[in-house]
Amino acid sequence: MEAYDIILKKRNGAVLNPDEIKYMVRGYTEGIIPDYQMAALLMAVYYQGLDMEETAHLTTAMVSSGEVMDLSSIAGKKVDKHSTGGVGDKTTLVLIPLAACQGLKLAKLSGRGLGHTGGTADKLRSIPGFKMDLSRGKFLRIVDSVGAAILTQSEEMVPADKKIYELRDVTAVVDSIPLIASSIMSKKIASGSDGVVLDVKVGSGAFTKDREGALALAESMVDIGARVGMPCRAVLSNMDQPLGYAVGNSLEVEEAISTLRGGGPADLRELCVELGLQMMLLHDPDLDRDRAKRGLEDTLDSGKALEKFREIISAQGGDPKILDDPLGLPKSKYCMEIHSSQRGYVQEMDALKIGQGAMALGAGRKTKDQDIDLTAGIMLKKKVGDSVEIGEPLAVLHSNNPEALEMAGRLLLQAVTISTELRKMPRLVLDTIQ
Amino acid sequence: MEAYDIILKKRNGAVLNPDEIKYMVRGYTEGIIPDYQMAALLMAVYYQGLDMEETAHLTTAMVSSGEVMDLSSIAGKKVDKHSTGGVGDKTTLVLIPLAACQGLKLAKLSGRGLGHTGGTADKLRSIPGFKMDLSRGKFLRIVDSVGAAILTQSEEMVPADKKIYELRDVTAVVDSIPLIASSIMSKKIASGSDGVVLDVKVGSGAFTKDREGALALAESMVDIGARVGMPCRAVLSNMDQPLGYAVGNSLEVEEAISTLRGGGPADLRELCVELGLQMMLLHDPDLDRDRAKRGLEDTLDSGKALEKFREIISAQGGDPKILDDPLGLPKSKYCMEIHSSQRGYVQEMDALKIGQGAMALGAGRKTKDQDIDLTAGIMLKKKVGDSVEIGEPLAVLHSNNPEALEMAGRLLLQAVTISTELRKMPRLVLDTIQ
Repeated sequence: MEAYDIILKKRNGAVLNPDEIKYMVRGYTEGIIPDYQMAALLMAVYYQGLDMEETAHLTTAMVSSGEVMDLSSIAGKKVDKHSTGGVGDKTTLVLIPLAACQGLKLAKLSGRGLGHTGGTADKLRSIPGFKMDLSRGKFLRIVDSVGAAILTQSEEMVPADKKIYELRDVTAVVDSIPLIASSIMSKKIASGSDGVVLDVKVGSGAFTKDREGALALAESMVDIGARVGMPCRAVLSNMDQPLGYAVGNSLEVEEAISTLRGGGPADLRELCVELGLQMMLLHDPDLDRDRAKRGLEDTLDSGKALEKFREIISAQGGDPKILDDPLGLPKSKYCMEIHSSQRGYVQEMDALKIGQGAMALGAGRKTKDQDIDLTAGIMLKKKVGDSVEIGEPLAVLHSNNPEALEMAGRLLLQAVTISTELRKMPRLVLDTIQ
Repeated sequence: MEAYDIILKKRNGAVLNPDEIKYMVRGYTEGIIPDYQMAALLMAVYYQGLDMEETAHLTTAMVSSGEVMDLSSIAGKKVDKHSTGGVGDKTTLVLIPLAACQGLKLAKLSGRGLGHTGGTADKLRSIPGFKMDLSRGKFLRIVDSVGAAILTQSEEMVPADKKIYELRDVTAVVDSIPLIASSIMSKKIASGSDGVVLDVKVGSGAFTKDREGALALAESMVDIGARVGMPCRAVLSNMDQPLGYAVGNSLEVEEAISTLRGGGPADLRELCVELGLQMMLLHDPDLDRDRAKRGLEDTLDSGKALEKFREIISAQGGDPKILDDPLGLPKSKYCMEIHSSQRGYVQEMDALKIGQGAMALGAGRKTKDQDIDLTAGIMLKKKVGDSVEIGEPLAVLHSNNPEALEMAGRLLLQAVTISTELRKMPRLVLDTIQ
């Protein structure tokens, strides 16, 4: 078998067989196939695509390049969740305790996030003492006894995906649906859970801007799951405006805590309940959905979810006092209110621009080794559909870098569109795919 | 300027500007832009193409990477010729003295050919004593005084093309018309002539199998020439069967000598006269074509072309006696006649299979550093349209490797199709483009 022939075959639009896909992935990971041949193949894949079967073979070939987590010591139904990433997406923080309360087991691996704000692991670093570099044994024991734990994702996990992703990133082939789907799914499969709920974001602040692309990505991932025997359900959720009001790591933790207490923004609560329901449906597709939803809502309202989060924090060495007194969370030195110069209704809150603003304030990172300012971010005061008066605050910016405030303020004002027309609240959950 | 953005731009189908093209070519040649980014760009070019302007910019950017031959010390009209390569193509050997007799100046650079048989430089190595590693000064002086000389092409010529071609060769992006056209034309421009005649082969033994592809390639090259002020004229010629009867280096030299003597195969003679005419038209588009053709034919028939070849051989240190006694050319130890098992008319003589047979006998090379057996090859005894009896020889195979004869014999028999239907001789010159 020769890399050249495989590139030529895909270039000409033919379907690669499993051996050819394995040969390329293994050869590239082991350094036998050079970067330039993989780059040529990936660009050919960008144009010619991969069919569902090829995509699944690519995924399993990448999984084989590294270790798969063994969760067999954990009793019960192990579920995982993935979000394609959005602005203000703190869903995981709420969903983990919420789902654990339903008897599900969540062995969550989380890495340093790239993008406008950090990943779940970054947000959790806001909690004093919270440790995510647990031993494998301790991690599994906490998941088994408490119901959930969060472990820092090892850099060595799915090395093929890491190497291929880094190449795609410098050769302009990131936005290929089969490549994205196989990248995400290879990490989920290697994480070892029985099933996964996928939150595919759609809109200006999401990776997939249009619904067709998001749907294709969701279908591809659900199909891979079905082919490898790891059932998946996907939710398409709106990311034209940020989720909730808080954008930035410790600000988002605070908002997640409110939500776990039965409060919090309506959209965040709605999405967490929907994703919790989908997790339950993974193992019991015939359950009474209305009843399950009410059960999830009750778990939030009764404070049970908050108590579960307390258990998780304690088990991982964190200080659970921040749950009762969010002032224990780190705060930035500077803040600035942004006021409206118009009156009317908020028509748009461009999630991308708000994310860029948060990034400017220090809340995100562009490269893996950049540091994040956990306290930096934006607290929105209005969302789409809200009425606003002249001089009313639209948002409060937080940062330790006073020079960033002006720039972020400009981005925020660009993000907000106000007019006198009434504007309905946009739908949050656009579709579910299974 | 970032390579990433240029890849993305082309990937999305936009037109690159001259600065972007220069940036990529220079950066890649200097080793600043890595192989994998160039590989991704080239694959994107394979799918999105380059327009005429981009192709010309790519060509000139490659020319700028190295030295351009200075032919200003040569008096007169300097013309060059390029063939896209075919089986049994010894045209250059005939054309150089033929055109020099018309007062044109030919400063011919020739490299080691890849393919079923060697390049012009390989064929000329059959002539005892013939030296092609001349000093630059001597080369220019011979061209000026004799009218033509052949110099070994320096490996350092157009380094950008060399590096890009090597990358295309291992990433399955050789067959892209703008990339082929710019590669050929960059070397022709760097060779320094005033104009070029391009022989674009079409058919099974050619790089371009179909007429549309060959036409597009010819038009692209002629367009580049016009844009850089180096007029080109192209001929599309048939390569479904080999040109002439001889395939293999010293066998082809012998056939070229017959042609220079006024004999030789009709198709070879026809093509040489046509290419000679096109060379004359480069500088005098209004000349009387019939008269010019008769003049060229007369140059062959009168022996003047042979005498010019003698002058060139002598000037370059070769032994001109081989012109009078072709037995002075090297001969292989073994030969084998291949006989027909059918009677009828030759319908097809598949040039590709015959080329592969010659290659098996040792006449060609796949990689630059392979050695060629100059004596190996195939002498056809029949061509398309000829009648054949059972037991009559179809060809004679020559090789120093007796084990190769069987294999080449099988390929030859596969190449020949005979049936009782009458078959017209195929047209040789299919089109001319200017």
